[in-house]
Amino acid sequence: MSAFDPASVKALLFDVFGTVVDWRSSIVDEGRALGARTGNEHVDWVAFADRWRSMYQPSMERVRSGEREWTELDVLHRESLETLVDELAVSNLTEHDLADFVDAWHRLRPWPDSPGGLARLRERFILVTCSNGNVRLLVDLARSAALPFDAVLGPPVARAYKPLDRAYLETAALLGLVPGECMIVAAHNTDLATAATPGLRTAVGLRPTEHGPDQSVDLQAEGAWDLVATSLEDLASRLGC
Amino acid sequence: MSAFDPASVKALLFDVFGTVVDWRSSIVDEGRALGARTGNEHVDWVAFADRWRSMYQPSMERVRSGEREWTELDVLHRESLETLVDELAVSNLTEHDLADFVDAWHRLRPWPDSPGGLARLRERFILVTCSNGNVRLLVDLARSAALPFDAVLGPPVARAYKPLDRAYLETAALLGLVPGECMIVAAHNTDLATAATPGLRTAVGLRPTEHGPDQSVDLQAEGAWDLVATSLEDLASRLGC
Repeated sequence: MSAFDPASVKALLFDVFGTVVDWRSSIVDEGRALGARTGNEHVDWVAFADRWRSMYQPSMERVRSGEREWTELDVLHRESLETLVDELAVSNLTEHDLADFVDAWHRLRPWPDSPGGLARLRERFILVTCSNGNVRLLVDLARSAALPFDAVLGPPVARAYKPLDRAYLETAALLGLVPGECMIVAAHNTDLATAATPGLRTAVGLRPTEHGPDQSVDLQAEGAWDLVATSLEDLASRLGC
Repeated sequence: MSAFDPASVKALLFDVFGTVVDWRSSIVDEGRALGARTGNEHVDWVAFADRWRSMYQPSMERVRSGEREWTELDVLHRESLETLVDELAVSNLTEHDLADFVDAWHRLRPWPDSPGGLARLRERFILVTCSNGNVRLLVDLARSAALPFDAVLGPPVARAYKPLDRAYLETAALLGLVPGECMIVAAHNTDLATAATPGLRTAVGLRPTEHGPDQSVDLQAEGAWDLVATSLEDLASRLGC
């Protein structure tokens, strides 16, 4: 790929879970509050959050492979939650409790630098989500966390979960851009590698505590990414915003 | 349909051309500037703008009917422009002139009450576009006119031009809502009638000068719409924002 020139980029496509919002501590806090309210204080809510997230890729893989028809993430989250509630012996949850816990993914907290970093980046670039979350989840998240995205595109609009090429290519096409005018921003090296394949530019925004204090993955760039940033504010500076 | 309760509405779906932005005076001004720059001062740019807009429905009808595959509005606008340039004897336009005039639809001016009215409405409702414009056109328009939409949904995402039911129903589904939790906002009685059929709530925001000083259509509500407003600020007040 040719040398990187920020002026060639028109739109930034954001991974959201982990990159823009801190899903883990948000879900742990929501779990603990639910536990306190329903007599489930004995549950290890950190393990619960990690286990819930670990079911994310396998649940999407059935959709990606074609084994299962297009199914939104809210539905996959709900199914995984029902499995987990049995496995981890969480008791006495009502239908409202379950629905509300699935909705916790709609109100995840942003990393502290996300709202301000995005606001700076939006002065110069079109900002869109390219997340496996469903449209309503991402609309709610952008509203609750004050994230100034211009549009919700990517997987739920292309009806193709990342890392399928179509999730990236249809986003570029809807923006009237070629892939090289789009830059993926993600905290995960694998996200960047899969977006680089169809020709997107790549920026890693490292999140060394996404998985907690003992995180062992994605602590540094593991590819020749166009930009390496330590936050979205740092990314804005590196892109001249 | 049951009595209208604003609390039952979660999302407002906006028609954009005419309802939120003043396409006619914007295109007239861009045409006049183009004419002055290219030696086409003799052209009647008001007639040009009206004729261009009159080709809008017929161009989409070929797509709606299935005669033609899904084609974005930018492409339809460009084709109509090329026809018009011949018909109205506009001469000496370069490729850049033509492309830039098509892009004029991406930077239409908002009605004066639109940015402020939308900002008030957004405090209480999810705001999405439900316009036949393509995604990039609407993203550019929202950015240039400071329109705080939460998402670009509707026709270009459903790949179905209004008034096909799918344009409305897929928007509601992507928001996780039933049609009755969605309200269409439009300046045109026909837009409201076609959105009411699949069950959306209806608000007319009258724009008595959309077609100029001699406008003879859409000067008043012509159906039992849930709300009748004279501007988006007035709509905000009527919805308790």
